[in-house]
Amino acid sequence: MAKIVIKFGGTSIGSIDRIIAAAKIIKKKFDKGDKIIVVVSAMAGKTNELVKQSEKISKNFNKRELDVLLASGEQITSALLAGALEEKDIKAKSYMGWQIPILTDGDHNNSRIINMNVEKINKFISSKGVAIIPGFQGISKNGDITTIGRGGSDATAVAIAKIFNTDECEIYTDVEGVYSTDPKHFPKARKINKISYEEMLEMASLGAKVMQSSAVQTATMYDLPLHVRSAFSSAEGTKIFGAENIDYSKTITGVTYSKDEAKITLLGVQDKPGVAADIFEPLGKNSINIDMVIQNISPDGKTTDLTFTIKRSDLSKTIKIIKSNKKNVKFKSISSDKKVSKVSIVGAGMITTPGVTYKMFRALAQEKINILAISTSEIKISVIINEINTIKTVRKLHSVFNLD
Amino acid sequence: MAKIVIKFGGTSIGSIDRIIAAAKIIKKKFDKGDKIIVVVSAMAGKTNELVKQSEKISKNFNKRELDVLLASGEQITSALLAGALEEKDIKAKSYMGWQIPILTDGDHNNSRIINMNVEKINKFISSKGVAIIPGFQGISKNGDITTIGRGGSDATAVAIAKIFNTDECEIYTDVEGVYSTDPKHFPKARKINKISYEEMLEMASLGAKVMQSSAVQTATMYDLPLHVRSAFSSAEGTKIFGAENIDYSKTITGVTYSKDEAKITLLGVQDKPGVAADIFEPLGKNSINIDMVIQNISPDGKTTDLTFTIKRSDLSKTIKIIKSNKKNVKFKSISSDKKVSKVSIVGAGMITTPGVTYKMFRALAQEKINILAISTSEIKISVIINEINTIKTVRKLHSVFNLD
Repeated sequence: MAKIVIKFGGTSIGSIDRIIAAAKIIKKKFDKGDKIIVVVSAMAGKTNELVKQSEKISKNFNKRELDVLLASGEQITSALLAGALEEKDIKAKSYMGWQIPILTDGDHNNSRIINMNVEKINKFISSKGVAIIPGFQGISKNGDITTIGRGGSDATAVAIAKIFNTDECEIYTDVEGVYSTDPKHFPKARKINKISYEEMLEMASLGAKVMQSSAVQTATMYDLPLHVRSAFSSAEGTKIFGAENIDYSKTITGVTYSKDEAKITLLGVQDKPGVAADIFEPLGKNSINIDMVIQNISPDGKTTDLTFTIKRSDLSKTIKIIKSNKKNVKFKSISSDKKVSKVSIVGAGMITTPGVTYKMFRALAQEKINILAISTSEIKISVIINEINTIKTVRKLHSVFNLD
Repeated sequence: MAKIVIKFGGTSIGSIDRIIAAAKIIKKKFDKGDKIIVVVSAMAGKTNELVKQSEKISKNFNKRELDVLLASGEQITSALLAGALEEKDIKAKSYMGWQIPILTDGDHNNSRIINMNVEKINKFISSKGVAIIPGFQGISKNGDITTIGRGGSDATAVAIAKIFNTDECEIYTDVEGVYSTDPKHFPKARKINKISYEEMLEMASLGAKVMQSSAVQTATMYDLPLHVRSAFSSAEGTKIFGAENIDYSKTITGVTYSKDEAKITLLGVQDKPGVAADIFEPLGKNSINIDMVIQNISPDGKTTDLTFTIKRSDLSKTIKIIKSNKKNVKFKSISSDKKVSKVSIVGAGMITTPGVTYKMFRALAQEKINILAISTSEIKISVIINEINTIKTVRKLHSVFNLD
């Protein structure tokens, strides 16, 4: 008999049939005698529908009222799921953020959970009741409804696992877990059974959108094991925990890629201290994220060439800002390429395995793939390549590192 | 500068455009300096949509959770309208039932408002803020979300008018007010400028669905004037108040009709004390409402014929119950007619005007319309007729009593 948190994401409760299916999954655990707290997202598409309605009224919709509006999405799913459990003769109750209460701090639309009252819910689940809690929301100190940012239901589930000190935290979604690469485009991708928090974070930030990164970060902080699995099958999913629990037989855990990249090169930049800061400061102020940066020193030692990558959607805005900043930063010419992509290998095993970088570059050379930029961290190596080579690169790396 | 309650019904805020239009109506009053509390329904169709979702899960959906589910409808409208006012630079805040709080008593799905905290909202509207309150909902003593029955947003508006001691209570809807008869089918129908509570109640219960009856009843109890008007035009609507405020130039205020009727006749019923009670008791226990009853004494004095009317949808159920009760109530035969309708004339003026009944029956006789049953109250006379004669009857009475 365990105390568990189960979270259902948007597609896994995206219709009445899926809500009834979720009730079946819960019933199985309930029949085993588990004490269960369920966290639910809004039904798939619901939050976007509400946001669109607000945008028709104002491009700058009042933030307090946006929270009141969006919170209704999870409220609906909570009530429907509680009703579906009651229909199966399981005692169930929905608890809104204000009823528990879930206390949050910070701005509207972007709060974070700071505390939660456990008494009411512990009492209810101890009396053979299933508690249903809407994810993504809470109340502020002065009693307003707040939300904790998009995808925040994962964060609610992790916070509950921590505060209620549960034995398990299962995240039900529409995929069977985390894969060694994108299973939609690479049939040789395989499900990863165990992954460390750090690898999961690198995979997530590189485009494997299985779980919200901030929720994984919180789980890392408290060393809370997570289990990401499918609501559409009974197969085990991916378990996420500390690297110390993983026996690394493979150097690399996964290959991720993103086609959402663009590259800018400034040629003949005046080489003096602080020039990079002068270039990037106005970009940062305009919320443009710089990803990789490469600087070559020129033969004459007076000018330099600077290459960096950004999100493709930021390209024209970035060029405009740099050109308007020419009185502060002098350069000969600017060129850009929006047909580039980023491919990364991720694996905690590379820390203890020498030669991974070499092996990666050799593999790409064999395929005559030109590397435009490189960036590395302890457990990740990323390269920027021409977009046209994406598939070939992912396939080659997936095979070279024995992931097929 | 007045303190007012404005209520918007489903169709008057049934789309984003309508919500923006409602914000314009509010702005006009706000610019005059009025202190404003707004009560909103769910957007038209929303509550039905949610009920349908619940019914797909269970024919007997948990009542507590149904309240959580349905309350989301008004929550959405409150937030959208508050956002629309903020967009017009009017300070506005939505206040959910639990934030005020609005305290209710009674069962889930059918609670009634017993009290409300006025402090927070009085403070806010005194600081040039518009308070938006979702109708139809509150919380119970133990902190659960409750709803006060379908159409209950009218009741919320009236309760607020009473508890906040406001100067006015305007009910915005999709018609211009209360009409002398159904304007959709009778071009000669005209808007009634002033009507008494009692007449309004008779009109409402007879099918003029402009306002929910229980809300009018509450207004009657506290002598609160109401103003029912259209959100689609700036024309004055119908004012509802005590009869003492009305100068009756006409005997009859309106003609209403309902085609939702059926008639049952029991022939040769054993005539003994208590026989009517024996017939109607099992019907009442099965929630079948008896409308009119006519009993003829038979020539032999031993048997009687009994005719009564019910809702058409209850007909087969009613016959079944009577037949299964034959061991308690003996009768020769049973016949029924589901092609009947009820036409009524309503008017506080008839109290002081003799001969109204006579005038009505003479008018119907002139048109050769057979009266199947009659029922009268102080301010209403209803007749049951063959359904086929409905239009002819209404037109005749509307003309005879000078309403054209």
